[in-house]
Amino acid sequence: MRLAKFYSLMCLLAVCWSGYAENLRGEEIATELESPQQAILDSSLTQAESIPQPKIRNVILMIGDGMGPQQLGLLFAYARHAGSSQVPEKETAEKVSAIEQLATQGNVGIVRTNPHGALVVDSAAAATQLATGASAGSEMIGVDYKGNRAETVLEVARDSGKSTGLVSDTRMTHATPAAFAAHQRHRSMENEIAVDMLENKVDVLMSGGLRHWVPQAVNKKDSAAYMALVQMIGGAFDPYSKREDNRNLLLEARGDYQLVFDRSALEKVTEARVLGLFANSEMLDAIGERKTLATGVRTEPTLVEMTKKSLEILNKNPQGFFLMVEGGQIDWAGHNNDAGDMLWELLQFDDAVRNVFEWASKRDDTLVLVTADHETGSFGFSYSGYEIPEPQTLGGNVFGEELFAPNFSYGPPHVLNALAAQQKSYFEIFTEFDSLPTEERTAEKLLAIVNEAVQPLSITLADATELLNRMANQYYQKGHPYLGTPTLPQIPDQEAFFVYGENLRMNRLGHILGKQQAVVWGTGTHTSTPVMIAGFGPESERFTGILHATDVGKRMIEIIRGK
Amino acid sequence: MRLAKFYSLMCLLAVCWSGYAENLRGEEIATELESPQQAILDSSLTQAESIPQPKIRNVILMIGDGMGPQQLGLLFAYARHAGSSQVPEKETAEKVSAIEQLATQGNVGIVRTNPHGALVVDSAAAATQLATGASAGSEMIGVDYKGNRAETVLEVARDSGKSTGLVSDTRMTHATPAAFAAHQRHRSMENEIAVDMLENKVDVLMSGGLRHWVPQAVNKKDSAAYMALVQMIGGAFDPYSKREDNRNLLLEARGDYQLVFDRSALEKVTEARVLGLFANSEMLDAIGERKTLATGVRTEPTLVEMTKKSLEILNKNPQGFFLMVEGGQIDWAGHNNDAGDMLWELLQFDDAVRNVFEWASKRDDTLVLVTADHETGSFGFSYSGYEIPEPQTLGGNVFGEELFAPNFSYGPPHVLNALAAQQKSYFEIFTEFDSLPTEERTAEKLLAIVNEAVQPLSITLADATELLNRMANQYYQKGHPYLGTPTLPQIPDQEAFFVYGENLRMNRLGHILGKQQAVVWGTGTHTSTPVMIAGFGPESERFTGILHATDVGKRMIEIIRGK
Repeated sequence: MRLAKFYSLMCLLAVCWSGYAENLRGEEIATELESPQQAILDSSLTQAESIPQPKIRNVILMIGDGMGPQQLGLLFAYARHAGSSQVPEKETAEKVSAIEQLATQGNVGIVRTNPHGALVVDSAAAATQLATGASAGSEMIGVDYKGNRAETVLEVARDSGKSTGLVSDTRMTHATPAAFAAHQRHRSMENEIAVDMLENKVDVLMSGGLRHWVPQAVNKKDSAAYMALVQMIGGAFDPYSKREDNRNLLLEARGDYQLVFDRSALEKVTEARVLGLFANSEMLDAIGERKTLATGVRTEPTLVEMTKKSLEILNKNPQGFFLMVEGGQIDWAGHNNDAGDMLWELLQFDDAVRNVFEWASKRDDTLVLVTADHETGSFGFSYSGYEIPEPQTLGGNVFGEELFAPNFSYGPPHVLNALAAQQKSYFEIFTEFDSLPTEERTAEKLLAIVNEAVQPLSITLADATELLNRMANQYYQKGHPYLGTPTLPQIPDQEAFFVYGENLRMNRLGHILGKQQAVVWGTGTHTSTPVMIAGFGPESERFTGILHATDVGKRMIEIIRGK
Repeated sequence: MRLAKFYSLMCLLAVCWSGYAENLRGEEIATELESPQQAILDSSLTQAESIPQPKIRNVILMIGDGMGPQQLGLLFAYARHAGSSQVPEKETAEKVSAIEQLATQGNVGIVRTNPHGALVVDSAAAATQLATGASAGSEMIGVDYKGNRAETVLEVARDSGKSTGLVSDTRMTHATPAAFAAHQRHRSMENEIAVDMLENKVDVLMSGGLRHWVPQAVNKKDSAAYMALVQMIGGAFDPYSKREDNRNLLLEARGDYQLVFDRSALEKVTEARVLGLFANSEMLDAIGERKTLATGVRTEPTLVEMTKKSLEILNKNPQGFFLMVEGGQIDWAGHNNDAGDMLWELLQFDDAVRNVFEWASKRDDTLVLVTADHETGSFGFSYSGYEIPEPQTLGGNVFGEELFAPNFSYGPPHVLNALAAQQKSYFEIFTEFDSLPTEERTAEKLLAIVNEAVQPLSITLADATELLNRMANQYYQKGHPYLGTPTLPQIPDQEAFFVYGENLRMNRLGHILGKQQAVVWGTGTHTSTPVMIAGFGPESERFTGILHATDVGKRMIEIIRGK
């Protein structure tokens, strides 16, 4: 009862009204009149067939950021072929990833991802297109390519009385979640995005990125603001701010939201609204998270824990919910050409998918969509001249005594175990290296850090030396946020596609280890590869064939509107 | 009438019997008894439901070799976004490739491609898995991973009374067509594969690769064998042999087959069996073919012409047919990292798909499957720091006076036109260069040849000089068919994955031109990316979700057997 009252009040005072007021355009008005809530108020609509009924209570969109078909291939292969596979064994003999199970039991489509005016999409335009159904320009958040605000599926769900939620393992204000609940001209405007999200009254917000929600004043460690914030977050992490003003969005949220900063606080939450910010910037990477799972010492919830809690909270609304869950660091591992971390990021996201799939499988009112925004890295296992296997005897009526002797090494499955054995992400490796005093940052030291982290693989001292080589930045632009340094770590080929400064050392490490991993990478950025969408539940058949990302957005919105 | 008699005779004397004789194994016998032909002979089977009826008369499998989702993305993008798009304009405003149309009107699935014991597949094992449903080892043709002969879908179709056909723009005995009608332990055994194909009584065989069908003796240009062969093929091309014996498979075929060597002879063919061998080795690449289309001077039929003729001939069998059509040089362009040629190869294959799709759309008895065996090149459009566009004004209620200024270049669509404008494949470029006298093979000369072929793109003299640099072959193996040279053209990164000798110059050219094309490549070989399968027609819904290549083979065989 308390809940029902809560939701009615919410709708009356804030959500429905703000949605209505923002939609005073002809086309949108017509749409509003067709929504069930409006129809109930309209006594002239008496025939059942004139009121389209939503067939679906809940829509859950799960985005593996940078999870192209290439990355799915890694996940599927690891689940099925690696001795150390972490994917739970099912009653059937085969081990199969949750995404593969969902796709096989549901429907599959292929999604073209390009933004307006270009062939390759960034995560902001990609998420905007998925969220709004509108064609977007590069790096925009919730804005169409003409520069106008574009309504998002989350806003449509909210305005139709549903609860809404955004979960990501990056930052709350990072491109993917941002595009569902903010409208800003550039993805870098994370401080403004935080304000938008709060004004948007999203019921569940869980991620990292506290630094965009707290006042600049906290950067002085002797300030009252800093002391108060430390007390508020209870020691989970040491806070700082990236804001350029002294707005404290946590205080502004407090009337509407429960604020949580660690997993034990999150466990106790039972109702919306909740704002969970579990790190200053990004949450732990999947290799780091795995370590904390082993030790039990951790303050951050996992992606699975955030997802489960979101389902529990959002499902209390009798009118259902829209939830977006992002596995955001698949993309980051791809950018760094870090196959070992990428595998763990995929497994972490697959765990979240498994939980959602099991939850939704017991119901008939929930549409689950699993897709990606783009591919990152031009990743692949590939065949090579490295360690070509010895010929062997097969027998059989064709081979008989003749030897089986392929000309190349086609990627032995044991490389999957080597990837899974990686103990640190490349990002952590270089963070550790960079934290050393200048005089200790030697090739020998780097060699030791790398080889401890990547065993059973290894690099040589010559490799480590090469990792510290530098080159002139051919694409130098003064003041550019990424290309603003005159020199860069050395990349020997296709240099134009490696644009992220000191991270280029990680790309180089990935390329050096590649032959031992049977792994290749083509870029430090994204590719244009169409991605998979897998749908499960009612209406999932609307997401088959070849779609564009904007079709996914449009169809989700139509479904929520009961069309 | 003549036709019906022809097929009855064929079935009685050769096909049904040979199929039966080869299938004297318990499991297969049971299967045979369930086939409609056997059932008609078996009077004890009276209930209709005990006789599974094939729902399908014809199965057409179209394989884009190396056509991963990455390559499909190029095709889809070119069709929709390039000003020079060659894809026929439909009545709807949008230009859409045939593969996209077929996939959207039909069903889509994702196919894992790995062979037995490895993560990456070569075209022989890949085609074997698609053809037989059996798990195959690398580089095997029609053999399972234990070394045993594996029955192919083509053989099952033949044994159930259907006609059969294989069409490829590579060589008749090349890996993909070979795996449907031969059983050899290695793909390089093309002379033996030719014998198998002939013994297999495939009704329609059309491709290049004459050199594996004619006696060694023809290599002496003053021999009677050479003179007779020249007369037989009528001047279409100058023949040579790769056989190591003096078997003349053309003479052996003559009783059963009409032999054709050029497109005008092919045009006159109206009935099976036909053996069309239109080149010594591979047929023209798609850029070369496009030029002959413009001039009208050509002896080779196009992939479309071979496909249309195959449909016409095979459809005369009242019991229907199985046809495999391969777009084989998509893969070769991928191996050479040649994006311009790859685009044209994709368009050529898409034209063949369009013809088949239109043919099948008028019927309700034909299953069309379009898929790939693997991806080649780890291809992608990608974003970079090269030629970042100038900021521009958008307006709109979010941007207003603020500039739209993305941080990177996201691949301007005009690069599609630049790819389409390419006048020679990289293979042709280096063939031309290598045909020069040694002293003329200079960087200046290479620069001129390249820049004439790739305009509006261009390379510099420094680039051309780099293309002629060499490096030690780190993977040198004496006597290895590919890695048997101590030095190789220089590849500066991920060298283990570039294994095809002098062709590495083409890879390097692709990487140098990449920034202007917004194109990246990760390898000179294949990747593990799962590929798309699109199905149209009855039973196409059996090819959705996540499949393995062997599932595709198994299901085609089941469908032909009426299961």
